[in-house]
Amino acid sequence: MRPSGRAADELREVKITRHYTKHAEGSVLVEFGDTKVLCTASLERNVPRWLKGTGQGWITAEYGMLPRATGERNQREASRGKQGGRTLEIQRLIGRSLRAAVDLKQLGDNSITIDCDVIQADGGTRTASITGATVALVDCLRHMQRNKIIRNDPLVQLIASVSVGIYNGNPVLDLDYAEDSNAETDMNVVMTEKGGFIEIQGTAEAAPFDKEEMDAMLELARKGVNDLLDLQRKALEQP
Amino acid sequence: MRPSGRAADELREVKITRHYTKHAEGSVLVEFGDTKVLCTASLERNVPRWLKGTGQGWITAEYGMLPRATGERNQREASRGKQGGRTLEIQRLIGRSLRAAVDLKQLGDNSITIDCDVIQADGGTRTASITGATVALVDCLRHMQRNKIIRNDPLVQLIASVSVGIYNGNPVLDLDYAEDSNAETDMNVVMTEKGGFIEIQGTAEAAPFDKEEMDAMLELARKGVNDLLDLQRKALEQP
Amino acid sequence: MRPSGRAADELREVKITRHYTKHAEGSVLVEFGDTKVLCTASLERNVPRWLKGTGQGWITAEYGMLPRATGERNQREASRGKQGGRTLEIQRLIGRSLRAAVDLKQLGDNSITIDCDVIQADGGTRTASITGATVALVDCLRHMQRNKIIRNDPLVQLIASVSVGIYNGNPVLDLDYAEDSNAETDMNVVMTEKGGFIEIQGTAEAAPFDKEEMDAMLELARKGVNDLLDLQRKALEQP
Amino acid sequence: MRPSGRAADELREVKITRHYTKHAEGSVLVEFGDTKVLCTASLERNVPRWLKGTGQGWITAEYGMLPRATGERNQREASRGKQGGRTLEIQRLIGRSLRAAVDLKQLGDNSITIDCDVIQADGGTRTASITGATVALVDCLRHMQRNKIIRNDPLVQLIASVSVGIYNGNPVLDLDYAEDSNAETDMNVVMTEKGGFIEIQGTAEAAPFDKEEMDAMLELARKGVNDLLDLQRKALEQP
Amino acid sequence: MRPSGRAADELREVKITRHYTKHAEGSVLVEFGDTKVLCTASLERNVPRWLKGTGQGWITAEYGMLPRATGERNQREASRGKQGGRTLEIQRLIGRSLRAAVDLKQLGDNSITIDCDVIQADGGTRTASITGATVALVDCLRHMQRNKIIRNDPLVQLIASVSVGIYNGNPVLDLDYAEDSNAETDMNVVMTEKGGFIEIQGTAEAAPFDKEEMDAMLELARKGVNDLLDLQRKALEQP
Amino acid sequence: MRPSGRAADELREVKITRHYTKHAEGSVLVEFGDTKVLCTASLERNVPRWLKGTGQGWITAEYGMLPRATGERNQREASRGKQGGRTLEIQRLIGRSLRAAVDLKQLGDNSITIDCDVIQADGGTRTASITGATVALVDCLRHMQRNKIIRNDPLVQLIASVSVGIYNGNPVLDLDYAEDSNAETDMNVVMTEKGGFIEIQGTAEAAPFDKEEMDAMLELARKGVNDLLDLQRKALEQP
Repeated sequence: MRPSGRAADELREVKITRHYTKHAEGSVLVEFGDTKVLCTASLERNVPRWLKGTGQGWITAEYGMLPRATGERNQREASRGKQGGRTLEIQRLIGRSLRAAVDLKQLGDNSITIDCDVIQADGGTRTASITGATVALVDCLRHMQRNKIIRNDPLVQLIASVSVGIYNGNPVLDLDYAEDSNAETDMNVVMTEKGGFIEIQGTAEAAPFDKEEMDAMLELARKGVNDLLDLQRKALEQP
Repeated sequence: MRPSGRAADELREVKITRHYTKHAEGSVLVEFGDTKVLCTASLERNVPRWLKGTGQGWITAEYGMLPRATGERNQREASRGKQGGRTLEIQRLIGRSLRAAVDLKQLGDNSITIDCDVIQADGGTRTASITGATVALVDCLRHMQRNKIIRNDPLVQLIASVSVGIYNGNPVLDLDYAEDSNAETDMNVVMTEKGGFIEIQGTAEAAPFDKEEMDAMLELARKGVNDLLDLQRKALEQP
Repeated sequence: MRPSGRAADELREVKITRHYTKHAEGSVLVEFGDTKVLCTASLERNVPRWLKGTGQGWITAEYGMLPRATGERNQREASRGKQGGRTLEIQRLIGRSLRAAVDLKQLGDNSITIDCDVIQADGGTRTASITGATVALVDCLRHMQRNKIIRNDPLVQLIASVSVGIYNGNPVLDLDYAEDSNAETDMNVVMTEKGGFIEIQGTAEAAPFDKEEMDAMLELARKGVNDLLDLQRKALEQP
Repeated sequence: MRPSGRAADELREVKITRHYTKHAEGSVLVEFGDTKVLCTASLERNVPRWLKGTGQGWITAEYGMLPRATGERNQREASRGKQGGRTLEIQRLIGRSLRAAVDLKQLGDNSITIDCDVIQADGGTRTASITGATVALVDCLRHMQRNKIIRNDPLVQLIASVSVGIYNGNPVLDLDYAEDSNAETDMNVVMTEKGGFIEIQGTAEAAPFDKEEMDAMLELARKGVNDLLDLQRKALEQP
Repeated sequence: MRPSGRAADELREVKITRHYTKHAEGSVLVEFGDTKVLCTASLERNVPRWLKGTGQGWITAEYGMLPRATGERNQREASRGKQGGRTLEIQRLIGRSLRAAVDLKQLGDNSITIDCDVIQADGGTRTASITGATVALVDCLRHMQRNKIIRNDPLVQLIASVSVGIYNGNPVLDLDYAEDSNAETDMNVVMTEKGGFIEIQGTAEAAPFDKEEMDAMLELARKGVNDLLDLQRKALEQP
Repeated sequence: MRPSGRAADELREVKITRHYTKHAEGSVLVEFGDTKVLCTASLERNVPRWLKGTGQGWITAEYGMLPRATGERNQREASRGKQGGRTLEIQRLIGRSLRAAVDLKQLGDNSITIDCDVIQADGGTRTASITGATVALVDCLRHMQRNKIIRNDPLVQLIASVSVGIYNGNPVLDLDYAEDSNAETDMNVVMTEKGGFIEIQGTAEAAPFDKEEMDAMLELARKGVNDLLDLQRKALEQP
């Protein structure tokens, strides 16, 4: 039995709200239950120095958590003077994942910065971030096409991400904080529309996991990602 | 004529939403038109070192802006490795103002940290922050009384804040970004329920201002603050 | 009765010593009683990136306090690795004020950096800094004219600054440390020769202040600034 | 055909040299071909603040690369003023992995810091680090038992780590730099003596990978880890 | 012929002004010609952690240069966020030298921080700093005796410092900036009243120097230090 | 009697191993007894901004110590966020010394960065670094000539460095840690093949030293440096 009463293969209620703020080229509030992340995509009309002259664009991500997004207040990274290891690890993951969704050569001399800021945290902030940021990214790409900044759609495929884990000995989908902090194993999976894997990061928290558990978790992830992709597509059909 | 079509003494539409996030002891989304700030109050059961043993509590504030809260994306302060001068100036102002609303000796050995994070910026983020943070602070004080952490209500008075300025030669209330970036003078005023001044910060942006303009601006501020105090009181009457 | 025995509208003894050090284009030691600040103006023959090509110059200020300028030694900001919020707040105020004294378009592709370093502190370091820095700035502008770097005098008006406050219930001019640390209200005022306001920053330290007190303080400030402007003009008449 | 001429399931020549430096409680030079990492384990007779009074010990890791360990010189992180995201990500991985090898409750009020410093890099520095650090950790635990700092052996199991990937469409074991920089997929696997997984981090560099490729890679990893565990055991049998 | 017209063994005009600022326990303005350094000694009634319980005190030094102490403005170290290598090297030298002048065991549980801040630079700032700081230190020790903080005088001996060098092939004493920036060799010497060496730091700037030149420089240093010690003693005889 | 049993004028066993790592243009492991430093020389095909257009090259050095190179683990400077004063002092010394060995005008628009990383410390790390780095530098210069990057050999002279000191009242050569931490005086000397001095840095640790002791130490240093120069030349004769 899960603390939330959900079935083992059941996502939390997921909401994807586009145009959440007015300035960004893409702005999405994504909610996985009580986890709420604001994902914005910001267009910049140049590229990092090491890409100048190559005709290739770039996508990068930054991640942050409001100090009181969590049960206990965390010190503000800006006042502490540096981003923590967890933050850097997560924003590297988000950036790598989103770059895999896009043909960077079609971006031209343009960069897109994805900001994922956690308004409220209840487990799964990195998977919610990737799922929401993908939608913000698509809005930004559409903006670029509408404004003739690029001619073709650089999107190769939608991607989505979900966590899976072993909780009380059972594989479960989309862990909330109550499960996450007690899980034996925690795994974040990023997948494409065609079922390919972009990222798998599995960690044994309390006990090593075996191949059978691994396979069960990946099967759950596949189901969860498919549900999320449906929600992304539905959100993107709105004007 | 103001860009927004408002009368000279007219506030933008102001909304105060309490309990906006679930973890903080006080959590308020305050909106001054398109300016949206999330204000949380976090209780900590101890005091800074220099207050230990005095029986007096403390209130401090931190301010941040999401990178794409503005028309152009700003570099994330956490990745830049330090808070800018504007940020520090604003959070010092917020902290001083809120401490003036409370009898710190009634707080006991407790600290409250106010976080004001700007989700979307359209001028007046510091005055919206102070106005919203006051409500979050009251919710935190009520939480402390409900949980017997303190016996008496330490609130001395509500405070609220609004900007005034000289725009196209005329004194106006509650400048939005279109006005703020072209005003001759910009003044932020923090006032109490009894009409006392807590803070006045006036800056001549384009031309010096005279005593007459000053008086006109302060009169507008008084009206605006009274309206804001009404909205705070109404919000606090809700459960 | 003031601790120093001064009348309510009486400045401390103010001295302005030009050419205090030999390298800077303008170098002034300003003394407001025991408060001593070395203000230098340094010319640089280029402008910040965002002004390149506009033909407009720039003025910026930095503020520092020697570690033992005060009764208790403060940690050196250079060894602490960052400037504190108070320092940043003050240097932003000095920079804004001095830019209001000058027509930046007449400066050409040149920048002037004002350094205000407090040798000894006894209250009012920011107002002394602005008052002394104005004289150092004029010396730098004269240097630029003498050396044909600019053709016209970019000075629009002299500015000066003084603090006022409510001490023991009475409005007083030019607070020293003994008053400043016990004042009910502290206000810093920057004014022009023509009586216009450049900056007003008033803070209720112990109790809110009302409009009447505000007016009384501004009247004192006007008198004090006029006296300071006289002293600046006298100093600038020397060779 | 692999650039090195190795078979798909063939490790590079691996050497584990214990007692490589004289001061540390455990000091191992580990070589995976041309990748050379010095792993030291340093005992400290106390624990982080959040563990005080729990009777539980702690293991943490730090990772660094000498500036010219690589083909192009990298800026020294100490002079740049911060550790990069890649460094933080790797040292968090090493720390988590090693903590999974030990019963921290048996460590008492003691901490062990693992330093993994890359002398020469040719791909696979993080997997070599984990494999070598495990041996340094065992030497440190033996030192603690010999000196009666702990009574029982806290080692639960040896762990080892190896990279696998898809190179030119084929799953290969233990990628060197030539392969790593051109692989379609790169996966780092940490496993126990009993065949359990501690960490799996797989990244699609050029193209998504499917379940079949995943299974093939994990099978290669299992073989590689078994070989590495043999080498660890042999090294630890020496005096 | 030296640029200043001085004889090879002639110091610049040296002035030592005690009680230069009012807050510090020792405060000395030292002038070596146009080089002017404010040296303050600040007493703190405790010791660094690693000396707690030993009954031994500590002396440490910090060095800074005002941004426009030099011909070209230098970036403020506080705003750059760190002290440069030259600054750290100099303050380590000052600290070591002053500790050699005092019997730290006689200091009790007290620390003295020496701040040497260069108001105007014209070569020899580190030797002027040591010479002036010694006098400020003595004033601080006298303050401690007067206030019964210590019973005995911890001063073992006065120390003083001067630079010597090879300029145009000739050994010269007390180099000013014009010489220093063109010298073949630059050497800073710290000596005691009894003629012992505390520090010798010689650097070949343009050409290696030989033993004969070394001996000639040390002979000049001995003469210069003796003159400086006389000036220190005369200054300390004043009330 | 020295702790190591060496004669007063006897070096520790010194080994110079070239081509120690494979990527750098020069890579030398230097051992002075148990002190082991890896010195690499990295060529970069450009110069610092202030040398652009002058046709002159540059040599700079960085120094680091692995955290557990010493008996007690030191905090990693990269994680502490800055290099300490000792580190900066040493790398400035190494850089100055090596620049004195080379005619920078012959280097063309090229820079060489010397990294000295201490693998194991037992006293004398800075003198071992300079001695080893000189050999790495020569290998880098040879590489540049072989690859026609420069036409002539810019090496003016070999340099080497050794420490001398007063231990138990007697002058001794090449202090190891046991001596260094108890020496009355510690002096580091850098000399050329022709017997000229490049750097002398002598510090009285426990008692001032006199001219006679100074002369005796310099005589020992001359002998030690000659032995080191022989070892450098022998190492450089190998292919």
